[in-house]
Amino acid sequence: MSLWGGRFAEGPDAALKALNDSLRFDQRLARVDILGSMAYAQAIADAGVISADDAEAIRSGLAALLRDVENDDFPSLASDEDIHTAVERRLTEIVGAVGGKLHTGRSRNDQVATDLRLWTMDALDEIDGLLLGVQRALIGQAEAHVETLMPGYTHLQPAQPITAAHWLMSFFWMVARDRERLQQCRRRTAVSPLGAGALAGNPFPIDRHALAEALGFASVSQNSLDAVSDRDFVAESLFTITLTSVHLSRFAEDLIIYSNPAFGFVSLSDRYSTGSSLMPQKRNADPMELSRAKVGRLIGHMAGLLTTLKGLPSSYNKDLQEDKEALFDAVDTMRQLLPVVAGVIQTLHLNPDRMRAALSDELLATELADYLVRKGIPFRAAHHLVGEVVQFAGQRDLPLSEIPLERLQMLSDAFADDVSAVFDFRLAVERKAVVGGTAPQAVMAQIAAAKALIDR
Amino acid sequence: MSLWGGRFAEGPDAALKALNDSLRFDQRLARVDILGSMAYAQAIADAGVISADDAEAIRSGLAALLRDVENDDFPSLASDEDIHTAVERRLTEIVGAVGGKLHTGRSRNDQVATDLRLWTMDALDEIDGLLLGVQRALIGQAEAHVETLMPGYTHLQPAQPITAAHWLMSFFWMVARDRERLQQCRRRTAVSPLGAGALAGNPFPIDRHALAEALGFASVSQNSLDAVSDRDFVAESLFTITLTSVHLSRFAEDLIIYSNPAFGFVSLSDRYSTGSSLMPQKRNADPMELSRAKVGRLIGHMAGLLTTLKGLPSSYNKDLQEDKEALFDAVDTMRQLLPVVAGVIQTLHLNPDRMRAALSDELLATELADYLVRKGIPFRAAHHLVGEVVQFAGQRDLPLSEIPLERLQMLSDAFADDVSAVFDFRLAVERKAVVGGTAPQAVMAQIAAAKALIDR
Amino acid sequence: MSLWGGRFAEGPDAALKALNDSLRFDQRLARVDILGSMAYAQAIADAGVISADDAEAIRSGLAALLRDVENDDFPSLASDEDIHTAVERRLTEIVGAVGGKLHTGRSRNDQVATDLRLWTMDALDEIDGLLLGVQRALIGQAEAHVETLMPGYTHLQPAQPITAAHWLMSFFWMVARDRERLQQCRRRTAVSPLGAGALAGNPFPIDRHALAEALGFASVSQNSLDAVSDRDFVAESLFTITLTSVHLSRFAEDLIIYSNPAFGFVSLSDRYSTGSSLMPQKRNADPMELSRAKVGRLIGHMAGLLTTLKGLPSSYNKDLQEDKEALFDAVDTMRQLLPVVAGVIQTLHLNPDRMRAALSDELLATELADYLVRKGIPFRAAHHLVGEVVQFAGQRDLPLSEIPLERLQMLSDAFADDVSAVFDFRLAVERKAVVGGTAPQAVMAQIAAAKALIDR
Amino acid sequence: MSLWGGRFAEGPDAALKALNDSLRFDQRLARVDILGSMAYAQAIADAGVISADDAEAIRSGLAALLRDVENDDFPSLASDEDIHTAVERRLTEIVGAVGGKLHTGRSRNDQVATDLRLWTMDALDEIDGLLLGVQRALIGQAEAHVETLMPGYTHLQPAQPITAAHWLMSFFWMVARDRERLQQCRRRTAVSPLGAGALAGNPFPIDRHALAEALGFASVSQNSLDAVSDRDFVAESLFTITLTSVHLSRFAEDLIIYSNPAFGFVSLSDRYSTGSSLMPQKRNADPMELSRAKVGRLIGHMAGLLTTLKGLPSSYNKDLQEDKEALFDAVDTMRQLLPVVAGVIQTLHLNPDRMRAALSDELLATELADYLVRKGIPFRAAHHLVGEVVQFAGQRDLPLSEIPLERLQMLSDAFADDVSAVFDFRLAVERKAVVGGTAPQAVMAQIAAAKALIDR
Repeated sequence: MSLWGGRFAEGPDAALKALNDSLRFDQRLARVDILGSMAYAQAIADAGVISADDAEAIRSGLAALLRDVENDDFPSLASDEDIHTAVERRLTEIVGAVGGKLHTGRSRNDQVATDLRLWTMDALDEIDGLLLGVQRALIGQAEAHVETLMPGYTHLQPAQPITAAHWLMSFFWMVARDRERLQQCRRRTAVSPLGAGALAGNPFPIDRHALAEALGFASVSQNSLDAVSDRDFVAESLFTITLTSVHLSRFAEDLIIYSNPAFGFVSLSDRYSTGSSLMPQKRNADPMELSRAKVGRLIGHMAGLLTTLKGLPSSYNKDLQEDKEALFDAVDTMRQLLPVVAGVIQTLHLNPDRMRAALSDELLATELADYLVRKGIPFRAAHHLVGEVVQFAGQRDLPLSEIPLERLQMLSDAFADDVSAVFDFRLAVERKAVVGGTAPQAVMAQIAAAKALIDR
Repeated sequence: MSLWGGRFAEGPDAALKALNDSLRFDQRLARVDILGSMAYAQAIADAGVISADDAEAIRSGLAALLRDVENDDFPSLASDEDIHTAVERRLTEIVGAVGGKLHTGRSRNDQVATDLRLWTMDALDEIDGLLLGVQRALIGQAEAHVETLMPGYTHLQPAQPITAAHWLMSFFWMVARDRERLQQCRRRTAVSPLGAGALAGNPFPIDRHALAEALGFASVSQNSLDAVSDRDFVAESLFTITLTSVHLSRFAEDLIIYSNPAFGFVSLSDRYSTGSSLMPQKRNADPMELSRAKVGRLIGHMAGLLTTLKGLPSSYNKDLQEDKEALFDAVDTMRQLLPVVAGVIQTLHLNPDRMRAALSDELLATELADYLVRKGIPFRAAHHLVGEVVQFAGQRDLPLSEIPLERLQMLSDAFADDVSAVFDFRLAVERKAVVGGTAPQAVMAQIAAAKALIDR
Repeated sequence: MSLWGGRFAEGPDAALKALNDSLRFDQRLARVDILGSMAYAQAIADAGVISADDAEAIRSGLAALLRDVENDDFPSLASDEDIHTAVERRLTEIVGAVGGKLHTGRSRNDQVATDLRLWTMDALDEIDGLLLGVQRALIGQAEAHVETLMPGYTHLQPAQPITAAHWLMSFFWMVARDRERLQQCRRRTAVSPLGAGALAGNPFPIDRHALAEALGFASVSQNSLDAVSDRDFVAESLFTITLTSVHLSRFAEDLIIYSNPAFGFVSLSDRYSTGSSLMPQKRNADPMELSRAKVGRLIGHMAGLLTTLKGLPSSYNKDLQEDKEALFDAVDTMRQLLPVVAGVIQTLHLNPDRMRAALSDELLATELADYLVRKGIPFRAAHHLVGEVVQFAGQRDLPLSEIPLERLQMLSDAFADDVSAVFDFRLAVERKAVVGGTAPQAVMAQIAAAKALIDR
Repeated sequence: MSLWGGRFAEGPDAALKALNDSLRFDQRLARVDILGSMAYAQAIADAGVISADDAEAIRSGLAALLRDVENDDFPSLASDEDIHTAVERRLTEIVGAVGGKLHTGRSRNDQVATDLRLWTMDALDEIDGLLLGVQRALIGQAEAHVETLMPGYTHLQPAQPITAAHWLMSFFWMVARDRERLQQCRRRTAVSPLGAGALAGNPFPIDRHALAEALGFASVSQNSLDAVSDRDFVAESLFTITLTSVHLSRFAEDLIIYSNPAFGFVSLSDRYSTGSSLMPQKRNADPMELSRAKVGRLIGHMAGLLTTLKGLPSSYNKDLQEDKEALFDAVDTMRQLLPVVAGVIQTLHLNPDRMRAALSDELLATELADYLVRKGIPFRAAHHLVGEVVQFAGQRDLPLSEIPLERLQMLSDAFADDVSAVFDFRLAVERKAVVGGTAPQAVMAQIAAAKALIDR
């Protein structure tokens, strides 16, 4: 069944129907489609387009349909072109010809835009809540490891000692930005296109503001041509989700590397580990590999949608039908992934002994240069001197702390007895006490700020 | 059920299973998975790893399973992690513990690579056949319009007259390149990874060449680490399909524009047109808009897969599980789209009258410059002179052919009586007679070459 | 010259230097790099790390360098690894060894993040201003065409009559969303990473808040690991620019189609048109084609950056060096494109006669259905009836308005004398008077809202 | 200067010129543009369109220009729109008005397509040669490490012992596929569009085959509309390069991880290592991080080009101008990257002691299961038994080889004295002796096959 057969001598080819019909994926809009129609029926009744009785008949038919949907019992037919068609068909089966009045002044163009915005608003709220769960898990682990020392890396090479809490909290702030973007995107989504008609506006005197309010929108679109073809909210949702996944992929990469036995810094709970069909010893961090991998799928969805939008003529084009599957899959991906990520974090076992064992003197080379700076040597010269010390140590396979003072003094007479105090990992960490630094007191302040942010 | 529980104290979290399990999409590999297992059972029997009786028991169990699959009656369970697990579980239910011998020396890593290659080989063959159908449809229409004149555009502005057959055939050659790429990709896909094990190779003396041959592969992989993680064939299949879709999008754009009433050059059959839920007169070229739109989805799949592959450590990583959905959807997209495209072309109505009416004198400006060239004026000077003629004509809103000779001679005395012969669209077309040109005889030669190519 | 030679026995290979060095593209950060260093010198002086005299010497050397940069006379050397190296080298040439004190406690990791954020803040402001110019141009043209009627299309097929002002204003709101996103992105960019050191924080008691304020940042980063590797602001800038370009591509597509002679709705000024080397008559809308095309480049930059970020280990990795060229090119693209787009709009010639001539009766089919609705027929039934009317008219090649009343009445007795009043394009437009509709009074309100928004 | 001013009353706006002109990037086509013009002059002379004297004058002028280009001394002007304009302008300055005859029958549309194909053919050849260099470097290192044992990983978790040569050779085959794709793409590029004119073909009787042959093309395009707008060769070149970069990124990831001190499997030469401006001890694998990162840039270029091509109307559109920068940058990226990659491999120091030290008993768990298989236990049961052995060992922190036989026999009486022979890494490796396996003799055969392939 379609809503448009009148002018055609012949019905659509079966292959065209298979390509064209969207019911297989847009049926998940059933709930919001029905809610949108209930509000619309009221709006055209208020505008005097249909009678109050007609509106009530339509409303009660839709209410019955809504119950069916909520019971997962909506009787769609293979012949229904899309969910809007299915709902109107079914409504008419229930309430009779009066059901045919519902679409007065409305087009599928403004209807589908309305539905998808309503669905997206809910989806973004849900993802926001799941991200909060990830943040809470990070804080929980961080609080337990404010004093745990570990090597910090840049370029995956030993750089400076840090605390494990600082490492964990670095991901908190990525997620905080993600949530801010998500919430702003959500606000831009909450703009009602209903009443834009096919492209030119609604010819009946409906109250678009009241209609928007009834559906939970914050405002109404200002231009009907734009309203029916604006998919910015989809693109922006996809971008926001993709950037979130990039952050998750970085966390995943750390866990994958840190759980290799050569590091042994962390191990995932059995509940979040998997094995091999061939190798009985295997204990793989599959969920982290999938976290890392999902970026590809999500970048693809986002770039794909933008490509589809590129160069479209004004107003609605069928190309826009391609917006939904990408968004649905992106949201589903987050729904699957985020609880697992939160679970992995909550149950993650950190191994402070292995972290401590990986601290080597070279992580203190910068401290040694800073020591020389405090003795009055310009940093650049101090850096170069310590570079020579490191080269010397490397050639003799000596830890920095075991180079005799006399040898150091051959390079610079600024080295003195007190140089031995440089080789203390804890002190090195405590020295990074400015805002955002890795010192325990700074990290405690950071955690407090994080808690304040999410409790706001 | 999983194939790897022994070493774990606790089973996987439900959320992890939902994220991790691939049965919901890899079940379509059931057929090739079973075929691969039948061949593998034979290979380990031939190598003396299992007895001939065991092999026969396994083979007959798998044969029963294959019949179930072919009858769409494969009893997978929600608890099955993936199709390989489901098949092994079901096999063991049928044949008992001997089923547990099948996986000897094999890993899911080489197994899934084998399955996906077999599936892809079939899929590429199918798409190749569908593209041949599009080529035949193009030739069919072209043969009917070798003499039909229409404006040729560059920058979508009138450029030179061409024949409709030439326009149609331009898409033939795009598809010809697509098919060549597809066939080369297919050959690179037909390399057997079976026998690579998890990553290191197979410890039993199986004959990988015989195994490959039994399954229809042309050769075997040379390095087991590479074999289990090579997804080049997926990336290349996706690229080839994407570039095909770019070509279809260009054809679609032409039809969308040419079927607007301002052009009216073509109209799609009712069977490939759709209407509007609001506007009773609408007759939209939905299938062409979807052809144009699908590029986004396909670019997304391809870029997504490449992103997923980026930076993976050696050999198999779980990230590779993301290869399948993109490929399946890309292939399904082609399966849906190509028959519709072929149908649109076969049933397309061209309107030679509207095409002819759109031929305006300015399309002959280059002919006019060539006229001057034949009179000895260097082309660049001739081009500039005709530019001034066009400007003059535009200011007076005159067709070029109606500018008085005296006026032309004010610009150049090379203009003579015979200039009137320039204003003949058919002659202009016939003059483009070199290979690849739009002249009817050149187009007939082109069509002959096209037929020879596809009949090869 | 590099800043890190001490520990190496051998210098870098020439091919490595060619790959690694970034001076060729990061030299455009010179100005912000120097400003950042001036502020940092003050910060370490305030913290007592260097003396006030040293700070003053450094400051005056940097001031001299800044003048060189502003005069386009910065003497970088091929051997300089990057702009930070070049500035430090040159500073030391000017002020002597004290220049080597500048880098105390600072790393190129926090330095380059600071530089790029400062540069981006300026760039986003500039683009925002250029987009405002586009908005003003749209309003200017719209105000002149509030009463100009034209066909509105969906699927590029005739849909309903609209006003040209409404069409033009539809792009205003796209740009309005772009600017809102840009401004929010700008706020997220204005977070100072300076003081994060290489990854662990700054070991000297600098006042990061004062430092941030001195440079025009609104706040400071909360975690040093995150601060040195956060490129969200680049990704988000790229996304925002890309989505803007998608909007421009849609406007471009309209102009390209509408300036084809078959439509003739608009013509671009000579100043924004180009010709052909071969065809003297050509008048191409090159700037619009480039507007359409640039989406590809920009999607590429954005997807590319996200791919580069995917799966990076914690904190700084050299991969991040790939952030700059994409962003610079995206910003340059907007700087080139937006003034041209604004110019095209300002000088665009609309042709109301051709627009009017393209209005055909079928654009009023929905009005005809609404007529029946007002007679009490449910919309769905009215839609079907009018579909039959359209089919009838098409078969006889009759305009809808010329079908005899008796013929209409054979389909439905709801048709009456007053049906003739339906066939009035202006009335049809005026009926779309709800917020966001195409009626002149609604469009005037829309323009007023637009002006209020940009003057806010 | 432009080649098309005649019909315009006003020249282009400065902002339009800045957007539109391509000289800044297409000047690197100067050499092939001149070669193409020399051949074309001959072709139109042979066809009798210009005289032999004119052709000779043009040829000698172009020869002078070619020398200028080869001496990097081509005097382009800011006013030149593109390289084709610059060459024609300069030619006319040298030889006078006869230079204006060169463009007879030719359009920039077929000219630029010809130029870019010629340039691409050379570029692909060059990249192919550089990839051969990488293959040789891999073979060189592999030959030295056929007996070197190391852990093989899947999911970056210990899997089975392998040889270092096998690991290195796994990248050889990726590059082998890359080169095959590159060579096939090169063949598809070598199709001459020259003679296609603007879109309709050449009106003069030139011999396109001779022209193609003179320029090194293998064949001629069959359809002029297709010829001027076919950019498949660019898209395919970009894809091939991108997939190559994905392979390089995987090699890079291995080296980055393996050169972290926790692994210590490899170290890069000083000549391919870099340091830190702050941390004197740093020794970073920058070139490998850049190898990994470049995938983003290249995916971006490829996806961007495909997006730009999407939905273009037939024949040439200005959008196609966006093809060059992406391709040029991709080729330059390979030119910079590949010699560094080859150098890194040639100078890579492998550390067999650290590799050996990382071999732990759990890598032999599959061997233990295979031991049970040889005792008659079905593999699946053996796998489960060994899983329990591993769990037991893990709980007691015991290596598998140190579990008392009696304890093993409590799990299965198939365990016997000879089980101790399982715990031999070398034997485990030697057992993987099938084609493509990691056993030294199999790897030697693999290397021989590799050498045969590249010497073919």
